[in-house]
Amino acid sequence: MQTPLKIAVVGSGLVGSLLAIYLKKEGHEVHVYDRSPDIRKINFSGRSINLAMSNRGWKALDGVGVGDAVREIAIPMDKRAIHLVDKLNFQDYGQEGESIYSISRGTLNRKMIDLAENAGAEFFFEQKIWDVTLNEATLHIGETERGEWEEKKYDMVFGADGAFSRIRHRMQRQSMFNYSQEFLNMGYKELNIPANPDATHKLDKNSFHIWPRGEYMLIALPNLDGSFTCTLFMPFEGENSFDSLTDRKQVEAFFEKNFPDSIEVIPKLAEDFFNNPTSTLVTMKCFPWTYSDKIALIGDACHAIVPFYGQGMNAGFEDITVLYEMIQKYGNDWKTVFSEYEISRKPNADAIAELSYRNFMEMSTKTADEKFLLQKKIEKAFSDKHPDKWIPLYSRVTFSDRPYTEALAIGDFQNTIMEEVLRMKNIETIWDSPVVENKILELLQKA
Amino acid sequence: MQTPLKIAVVGSGLVGSLLAIYLKKEGHEVHVYDRSPDIRKINFSGRSINLAMSNRGWKALDGVGVGDAVREIAIPMDKRAIHLVDKLNFQDYGQEGESIYSISRGTLNRKMIDLAENAGAEFFFEQKIWDVTLNEATLHIGETERGEWEEKKYDMVFGADGAFSRIRHRMQRQSMFNYSQEFLNMGYKELNIPANPDATHKLDKNSFHIWPRGEYMLIALPNLDGSFTCTLFMPFEGENSFDSLTDRKQVEAFFEKNFPDSIEVIPKLAEDFFNNPTSTLVTMKCFPWTYSDKIALIGDACHAIVPFYGQGMNAGFEDITVLYEMIQKYGNDWKTVFSEYEISRKPNADAIAELSYRNFMEMSTKTADEKFLLQKKIEKAFSDKHPDKWIPLYSRVTFSDRPYTEALAIGDFQNTIMEEVLRMKNIETIWDSPVVENKILELLQKA
Repeated sequence: MQTPLKIAVVGSGLVGSLLAIYLKKEGHEVHVYDRSPDIRKINFSGRSINLAMSNRGWKALDGVGVGDAVREIAIPMDKRAIHLVDKLNFQDYGQEGESIYSISRGTLNRKMIDLAENAGAEFFFEQKIWDVTLNEATLHIGETERGEWEEKKYDMVFGADGAFSRIRHRMQRQSMFNYSQEFLNMGYKELNIPANPDATHKLDKNSFHIWPRGEYMLIALPNLDGSFTCTLFMPFEGENSFDSLTDRKQVEAFFEKNFPDSIEVIPKLAEDFFNNPTSTLVTMKCFPWTYSDKIALIGDACHAIVPFYGQGMNAGFEDITVLYEMIQKYGNDWKTVFSEYEISRKPNADAIAELSYRNFMEMSTKTADEKFLLQKKIEKAFSDKHPDKWIPLYSRVTFSDRPYTEALAIGDFQNTIMEEVLRMKNIETIWDSPVVENKILELLQKA
Repeated sequence: MQTPLKIAVVGSGLVGSLLAIYLKKEGHEVHVYDRSPDIRKINFSGRSINLAMSNRGWKALDGVGVGDAVREIAIPMDKRAIHLVDKLNFQDYGQEGESIYSISRGTLNRKMIDLAENAGAEFFFEQKIWDVTLNEATLHIGETERGEWEEKKYDMVFGADGAFSRIRHRMQRQSMFNYSQEFLNMGYKELNIPANPDATHKLDKNSFHIWPRGEYMLIALPNLDGSFTCTLFMPFEGENSFDSLTDRKQVEAFFEKNFPDSIEVIPKLAEDFFNNPTSTLVTMKCFPWTYSDKIALIGDACHAIVPFYGQGMNAGFEDITVLYEMIQKYGNDWKTVFSEYEISRKPNADAIAELSYRNFMEMSTKTADEKFLLQKKIEKAFSDKHPDKWIPLYSRVTFSDRPYTEALAIGDFQNTIMEEVLRMKNIETIWDSPVVENKILELLQKA
């Protein structure tokens, strides 16, 4: 246990709530602030992508004993269901028994706040933080940016306030603060596949459904109530774009042509399409993440990534795991805790940002490509035979807690090997032969 | 002439003042705001790098008839004087008659404000702009960020307020605004070489002086009064760093060892070193640069670069040249003027950012490298013989007004050729022979 401090966590999202539980466990007084109303008291829908909890997320939850409470609201998905225009393919995510878990963001957030309150954290909703005095850990709170502000002094402030963090905003105005935000020319929109009348799922419940179409794609993840939360990713402008679909007729014709098997399961397609907002996708990087022993950023506030690897929440939760490791190691020396935390996490945050950016291409284009599916088969066959020699990239990211930097580097190396293997003569017929196996073994030796 | 508008220019620096002259010429009412006092009334020194005006800068000045007034305060530099620890080399910048021009920033800024006032622009100093309403071109002005603000409505606002622009700051808070700021782990400090008692220069007046030492370097540019403004570029931390030089003795020992021939010409070395601030170096990129027909960023406010190519001011002035071209083309259609301006300039701003970043290595390391000097000699010999086939990168950037993007791309191609040429057997002895000439001709054909 550490010397008890008075700590503010700004942001009551997933990372803020879980961090509050960890800090309570260490004996601190914890106040969590959020500019929005209590998510448990409002209708939260229409603008989110379902979460895919994987190894790193579970590790952080289990580390403070709340994993099982979350497992109750999670649905395992052990494979991709790839909806081509004329057929349906399946592709396992990992080995037998390995799954990622679909969870609705709203449901999980409500649960996490309950758990944090039970642990003793105090929540203050509809409290707008406009500024922070970095060297004093003082929050400036008020109704409007230009109106009266109240000051609240803490021993330490965590900024868990997401990609558009106000806490980071203040840090950004210091000299030597590196920062970037880059938006994709693509947005996303939530659509809904309702449950059957008997509350069963209209599509395979234990699959991550993808309709890969190159420049755009549709995905669907299951919910507990039998529904699926769908997300359409598409460019803002151009031939197949949000801008090009301006009325009911166009939307329906677009889906009939490009996602024919989705039509019967999305009954309120046009309503969803025009009622739900089109959201943006941003990659945000910055450094440093901390200020002395007073301020630390965590989660999306210091590394917002695009959602194509399903690792945003997992990476944010892993920040907490690493922070907690540093607390175990350095105790009350918060300056060292913070500096070791940011030094450890920054390269990994950059690596998962890169992997996530690249993965749009894999999801939207490669999953529809025969050559890519062949590559995955070869990798799987080899990995089954030599599990010590080949862990596929997806598994390194999703089913392990080894650093993201390692996954990125080894993944790139494996890719150079697979490119050479795919150039082998008649690879389509010999892919499962000892010739290919030996070729891979030989190429691995060159590392 | 356009329909007269009421236009605010935020920032009375070099770009803001020159832009004001252009806008007055078009018949607009022009108000220039600056948060600082009038530079003509204060002592401005100790924290700047002398400017190197080159082709793009002169073109913008001559375009509005003020080039000759500026030539009066400029000193031509036709070569690099490269101070190695034990000898002095010279290297011409271009062809006979081609020079870059040393100008003190303070002197030029004062002159530009005089010229803009003469053209009819009105200046408002010590006026702090805290915010701008983008869709109404309204400035919010006040003593402090949290105090009372006054509103000033314009037809159009230009943000010429530098790398830490408040106008951009507001644009940054919009969705889909891409932004990055990256600081080098290196800073700079101004030092001074005073004039001789008879007001002559202590070093060759028409040279850009460099002391290249790898990780750090010293430069010196001439002033009209016989002095030189020196700039020391060095890492903040590490073995040879600002942090490592903490007292008078250390500074003097460092200079004696590493810049021996500078000792006798910098009499107040330690005073300058400890009195002058250590400044940071940032690369800032963003997009978009404009908002509808109301707001446009220009100069460092939308593309701050590191100073190693001497192109910061030149690129900012070229923004004005391009903006003016668009005005000639599209008249009162400011929406199109702005959008064509940003589309034309953005890739070029990115290209000069990249070239400037790379050029630290050229200045600090390569100028001390025999192989690099040989490469320059080969390029020069070939270029003299085939001026239509080979314009060196430095000349493309400095002595032409062709796009920076083109300079970057062709420069990279030329580099691949020179790498191959430098690998030729006995290149040190045959560099001026027809064998080498033919090799280059042959490699150029492969383009």
